[in-house]
Amino acid sequence: MAETELVARYSETDQMGVIHHSTYVNWFEVGRTECIREFGISYNEIEKKGFLLPVIEVNVHYKVPAQYEDRVRVVTRVSSYNGIRLNFHYEVRRKIDDVLLVEGETKHCWTGIELKPVSLKKQWPELHQTITRLAKGD
Amino acid sequence: MAETELVARYSETDQMGVIHHSTYVNWFEVGRTECIREFGISYNEIEKKGFLLPVIEVNVHYKVPAQYEDRVRVVTRVSSYNGIRLNFHYEVRRKIDDVLLVEGETKHCWTGIELKPVSLKKQWPELHQTITRLAKGD
Amino acid sequence: MAETELVARYSETDQMGVIHHSTYVNWFEVGRTECIREFGISYNEIEKKGFLLPVIEVNVHYKVPAQYEDRVRVVTRVSSYNGIRLNFHYEVRRKIDDVLLVEGETKHCWTGIELKPVSLKKQWPELHQTITRLAKGD
Amino acid sequence: MAETELVARYSETDQMGVIHHSTYVNWFEVGRTECIREFGISYNEIEKKGFLLPVIEVNVHYKVPAQYEDRVRVVTRVSSYNGIRLNFHYEVRRKIDDVLLVEGETKHCWTGIELKPVSLKKQWPELHQTITRLAKGD
Repeated sequence: MAETELVARYSETDQMGVIHHSTYVNWFEVGRTECIREFGISYNEIEKKGFLLPVIEVNVHYKVPAQYEDRVRVVTRVSSYNGIRLNFHYEVRRKIDDVLLVEGETKHCWTGIELKPVSLKKQWPELHQTITRLAKGD
Repeated sequence: MAETELVARYSETDQMGVIHHSTYVNWFEVGRTECIREFGISYNEIEKKGFLLPVIEVNVHYKVPAQYEDRVRVVTRVSSYNGIRLNFHYEVRRKIDDVLLVEGETKHCWTGIELKPVSLKKQWPELHQTITRLAKGD
Repeated sequence: MAETELVARYSETDQMGVIHHSTYVNWFEVGRTECIREFGISYNEIEKKGFLLPVIEVNVHYKVPAQYEDRVRVVTRVSSYNGIRLNFHYEVRRKIDDVLLVEGETKHCWTGIELKPVSLKKQWPELHQTITRLAKGD
Repeated sequence: MAETELVARYSETDQMGVIHHSTYVNWFEVGRTECIREFGISYNEIEKKGFLLPVIEVNVHYKVPAQYEDRVRVVTRVSSYNGIRLNFHYEVRRKIDDVLLVEGETKHCWTGIELKPVSLKKQWPELHQTITRLAKGD
C-alpha cells in the first residue's frame, strides 16, 4: 500500500469550478508509480528492462469533487495479481477532513515492448514473487 | 447517436509511444458534447440555464492503442436514462480500418449549479422528453 | 501555411470559465503537425527515420480567451529556418468572427534520437530544400 | 520567492520519451500558486473576492528535458509589478543535481470577473502594497 500526497492544480480545474474528472486517472497513475516502488524497483527501470504494464481497464467512481488547491491523499494498493494480470485499487481522500472523493480500479497486463502479453512468473520470477506477496497483503 | 472525428495529438502520447490512457476520457467528453447537441441544445447552453451533468462513474476498456496522427471516430449514444441519471456509451474506432480501439461508459446525474441532484423530468420536461426518446433509440 | 480547425473541449476549460492558457501550446502543436505535412512527410515518419524536432522556446500572446465549444482555426507557417533551427508562427482565430484569440511562436532544433543537434542540410538534403522553399514563402 | 517540489508524472511524458513541453506551463502555474500564497492570501480566495489574474503572455526556454519520475524544484518570483500588470519568473531545476531544465516568464493583468482590467492599487491597496514590496525583493 502506498500513499501519495498531491495538491490540485489550476490547470486541472474545469468550468464547473471543480477538478476535471479525467484528472483522477492521472492521479491514480501517480499513486501507481509510488505503489510500484514497493516492488523494490521503479516503473521507469521496469520499462528500461523491456517490460510494460499497459492499462486494460479503468473504473472510476466520483463521490465528492476536489477543488483547486485541495490537498489530497491517493491511497493505492495491489488488488489482485495472477502472474500476468495485475490490478490496483485507489482511494483519493481530501487531506483536511479525510473525506473520500474518488475511488477506482485499474486493470493491467504485463507485456514486452511490442505490447504483447508476457508471463512475469516465467520471465521475471523475483519480481513475480514480490508482487504475489504484496497482493496477499503480506 | 453521434459520431465525431478526431486526430490523435502529439501531446496526447506518452513514453510508451501510444496515446495515453487518460486521453480517451477526454475524447469521450468530446463525443458526449456532440451527442448532447442532438437534444436540440448545446451543453454550454444547458449549463447557462443552471443545469449541470457531472460524471458519477467512468468505465473504460482498452483494446488496441491509438497512435499519434491516427484519425479516429468516437461513436456516442445515450445508453440509459431515468429522468435523473443519464448514461452514455462510447466506441472509439480507428478510421482507416474501423478497428475498435476503446469502448466505455460514463454515468451522470442532472444537478443544479450547487451540484445537488435535480429531476429533469420535473424541472425541464421538454428536455426530459427528448432524452427519453433518444434513449429508446427512436 | 497550414490551417487546422479545432473545437474547444470541456476538458480544456478551467474554473475561470475559459480555455486554459496551456491548451494553446497543444493547439500550436496540432497546427505544426499539419504544417509539417506540407514538407511531403508526416512528423511521425520523420521521427521513425530518427530525426526529432524538440521545442527550444515557446512564446504565446493571449488576446481574447476561447470558450468551450468555440470552433477555432489554427494558422501555422514556417517563420524561419537555417538548416538546423526551424521556427513556426501561429495564429488562433475564432471561426465565427475571425477574431484573433492567441498568437505565438515556437523555436525548434533538428536532433537525432539522442536529442543532439544535427544539420538537416547535410543529413537530409531533400527535406532541407523543401523547408527552405516553404520558409521563403514560395 | 517560492519553491515548489514536483515529481514528473507518466501522463506528462510524450513519445519522445521526455516530459511534454506544454507541461512546464502547468508547472509554472503550480509555482505561481505557491508564490501568490506569499501575498498573504491564496489565489483561490483572491478569485472568490472577484479578482482574476489571467495570463497575457507566456515565454518558455527549454534547456534540458525532464524525464518521468524526475523530482524537480520550481522556483518562482515576482519579476515586475506596476499596480495593474504583474509578471512572474520561473526556474525549473532537477532536484538531484540542480541542473536548470527550463526557464520562463508569465505576464498577467489584474481583472474583475468579466476579465476587464482593474487597478489593484485603487481597488485593493493592501494587496497592492504587499506585491509591491515582494516585487522589490524586500
